[in-house]
Amino acid sequence: MHKTQQRADKDNVAALFESENVAVIGSIKESWFGGYVVISQLKKFGYKGDIYPVNPAGGEVLGIKAYKTLADIPATVDLAMIMTSYKAFPKIIEECSEKGIKAGIIISDGFAERAEKGSKLQQKIVKIAKKTGMRLIGPNTIGLVNTANGLVSNPYVLEYDKIYKGSIGIFGQTGLVGPQALPLEDTGYGISKICDVGNKCDVDENDILEYLGDDTDTDVIIMHIEDIKNGRLFIETAGKIVAKKPVLILKPGKTKESAKALASHTGSLAGEDRIYDAAMKQAGVIRVNSHVELMEYAKIFSHNPVLPLKNRVAIVTFTGGFGVMGIDAAVEAGLTLADLSAESRKKLSDIHPTLANNPTDLGPAMPVTADFGLLYRQVLDIIANDPNVDCMAIVTYVGMGLGSADIFTDFREKTTKPIAIWLYSQKPKKMFDFARELDISGVPVFSKWEHALGALGAMYKYSLIKEKFAGIRHKGSP
Amino acid sequence: MHKTQQRADKDNVAALFESENVAVIGSIKESWFGGYVVISQLKKFGYKGDIYPVNPAGGEVLGIKAYKTLADIPATVDLAMIMTSYKAFPKIIEECSEKGIKAGIIISDGFAERAEKGSKLQQKIVKIAKKTGMRLIGPNTIGLVNTANGLVSNPYVLEYDKIYKGSIGIFGQTGLVGPQALPLEDTGYGISKICDVGNKCDVDENDILEYLGDDTDTDVIIMHIEDIKNGRLFIETAGKIVAKKPVLILKPGKTKESAKALASHTGSLAGEDRIYDAAMKQAGVIRVNSHVELMEYAKIFSHNPVLPLKNRVAIVTFTGGFGVMGIDAAVEAGLTLADLSAESRKKLSDIHPTLANNPTDLGPAMPVTADFGLLYRQVLDIIANDPNVDCMAIVTYVGMGLGSADIFTDFREKTTKPIAIWLYSQKPKKMFDFARELDISGVPVFSKWEHALGALGAMYKYSLIKEKFAGIRHKGSP
Repeated sequence: MHKTQQRADKDNVAALFESENVAVIGSIKESWFGGYVVISQLKKFGYKGDIYPVNPAGGEVLGIKAYKTLADIPATVDLAMIMTSYKAFPKIIEECSEKGIKAGIIISDGFAERAEKGSKLQQKIVKIAKKTGMRLIGPNTIGLVNTANGLVSNPYVLEYDKIYKGSIGIFGQTGLVGPQALPLEDTGYGISKICDVGNKCDVDENDILEYLGDDTDTDVIIMHIEDIKNGRLFIETAGKIVAKKPVLILKPGKTKESAKALASHTGSLAGEDRIYDAAMKQAGVIRVNSHVELMEYAKIFSHNPVLPLKNRVAIVTFTGGFGVMGIDAAVEAGLTLADLSAESRKKLSDIHPTLANNPTDLGPAMPVTADFGLLYRQVLDIIANDPNVDCMAIVTYVGMGLGSADIFTDFREKTTKPIAIWLYSQKPKKMFDFARELDISGVPVFSKWEHALGALGAMYKYSLIKEKFAGIRHKGSP
Repeated sequence: MHKTQQRADKDNVAALFESENVAVIGSIKESWFGGYVVISQLKKFGYKGDIYPVNPAGGEVLGIKAYKTLADIPATVDLAMIMTSYKAFPKIIEECSEKGIKAGIIISDGFAERAEKGSKLQQKIVKIAKKTGMRLIGPNTIGLVNTANGLVSNPYVLEYDKIYKGSIGIFGQTGLVGPQALPLEDTGYGISKICDVGNKCDVDENDILEYLGDDTDTDVIIMHIEDIKNGRLFIETAGKIVAKKPVLILKPGKTKESAKALASHTGSLAGEDRIYDAAMKQAGVIRVNSHVELMEYAKIFSHNPVLPLKNRVAIVTFTGGFGVMGIDAAVEAGLTLADLSAESRKKLSDIHPTLANNPTDLGPAMPVTADFGLLYRQVLDIIANDPNVDCMAIVTYVGMGLGSADIFTDFREKTTKPIAIWLYSQKPKKMFDFARELDISGVPVFSKWEHALGALGAMYKYSLIKEKFAGIRHKGSP
């Protein structure tokens, strides 16, 4: 491909996220789905650009003038969100081309994910868009989120008013990475960008990976991938990015039966899992096993400022039983139990003899004090300062004098070593609020104890990947 | 062992759970731990027997007369809960023997889990108890729960007022199975009995397994086991029980490092994992991989009245992506995708053409109706009535017209086929309440989609185990 063309392609992918105006093409009648919802949510999430509703009826929607055709809009438009029936295609794409639109999000369904006829229609619109270099996302997508400019294309009603902003960039091939499926106000992990490529008629994982790789608002990239279109390019693109920031991938379709289902739901042909597995290893991306892991493991990176030096983990617990389970999970995740220094053991032993171990179980030391919070503070400080400890996995109980999140948010201020925390409690809702408080203060909370250890293991794995890939790049440059 | 002695041993284990009176030996001063808490909680949870506080100071606690010594109590006492310092031992056990007490729960710590001295003290008290046949639980335990008579020995303050009653019997070797660690009011899985054996100086997994096996209030037994004392007896006992009811086990300590930690925390020596693994298979128990799985898999049995005929699962989802992930999890759990009957496919297709698949994805059919609840009801009914379907895994969204739990609780009334459900939502707390409503109506909700499939797989596995073990027993009897 010609360099200038490559540049334009890339600029037009950027237009998807960063456009200063958007035409919303579709129904503007009040409904639970469609243009009306998109426009009201662009307003709700504070989209900074101009909004141009387009509908043959014209009129007004939510105080904004609607245009009967794209051509009627008295301004340059870079981005179109399209949610009409598939029957309006390909005409609508022709009109977008004529208007000089750089990028389109096709929310409409009825294309390659259905019958052959839909597949042909999809090919047709791509061909039209190619002529002017317009880039297309979808069809069959909920589209994009950009928390930097308030762009939210999701056509379903969102029951929250704010998307928690942060450094996690999300790519997905289905709507389950979208704001309608995730509690983005309540989770405590901040989002930079989200992109669901749907049928990926044009823009695919490689485009978005490259965009998020360059995006300064994104520190960690998580991807839900169902198939990879161009494996060689993927390995090359990911290899460049993992030298700078981690890429985590969930790739379902491990069995014949699931591969078949994949084909029917995205209109794509899935390859053999072992080929994907090898490609992901070669690309330096970290593969996870579930949707929950994908979402939560991102937090270990977004919440911890510094990568671990080695893989020596200290486990701090409130119940011996969880300590033992934690060791199993740690070893499985590629970690090893830190051998606490003589100095740390002396200090811990001075508080209570049973504490001088890893896992450090605070339970038996409880009788020495009624202030368990203070006990936690003392123990955490000693262990975080131990040169033999690279990262820490912490179990805490929410209740009994341990109801204050300050214990852990204060601790966060004191250490740059990676930490991961898991909570248990008699009161689930109290625990939920507690977790939220920790998360927004940079203490990553995990929903399963095994995930806390697994996430720390992923962070250690990434430290090795970064070393390897940054090194290779370095040698290769002049 | 002599038959009469066996009988008495067993009766005294029963006395632990079913005693009509209890002496609570320890501090009766108001505190966050100890005798005061136990007495107040026996009252709170409605313990049906007589309570006799015992403390050298005498006096009164919470309106109940305290006795200076056990001997002073003017009645027969069957059960003692002891939470004095370890320094009060072995004298206290001698006094219990003299009083004719059948069973004791030793909550006190400072025994085998500490130094050699503690180990000797532990041996001493067992020797004393043996003379009169008194059975001992502990030391270093939070003891028992029996929801049938309100017995709760847990010495820590419980922040809830009710333990949700049901058919799950829990055994554990640490406090993490206890009511202080679990949200037993809010989980929606009902408890029959809980037993934490702590250091298991006397009563062990075999005693409790046998007791729960005979207990008519218990339909499913879950065990957190750190070591097995008598493997041959365990295999024999479990083998008898799994012919009647399922037994699920979490056995940590898979690595050398965790086995070492086990030894220090329970004062027991852990064996090699592969030996345990083989023993569990031989015993017909189902091994799970995490604490969450242990607790949640119990629900698949307590909530579903009938075992599946075969392993053919139908997956109903609201997002195609989760359908694919569900297949991976199903295959991993030993299930296979049901091949829907022509009749079902016809009926589904009549609603919307894309529905006639397994997984059945309701997402693309959404445009046909604004009443997604009705759509779910129709689809669930068709699939549940399909003779090719043995069990169902369901994903639902909480929101957008799917906010009513009735859809699923009504469905529960209509089918005896095993079902498992997983929820996602924009609003975590709303989802929590929704889950609770489903759970108490017999629709088991799982915290991870993979766990929903894993639990259905465990139920199918148990159907094979039951067949095998009940068969063997059958052939063996006259």
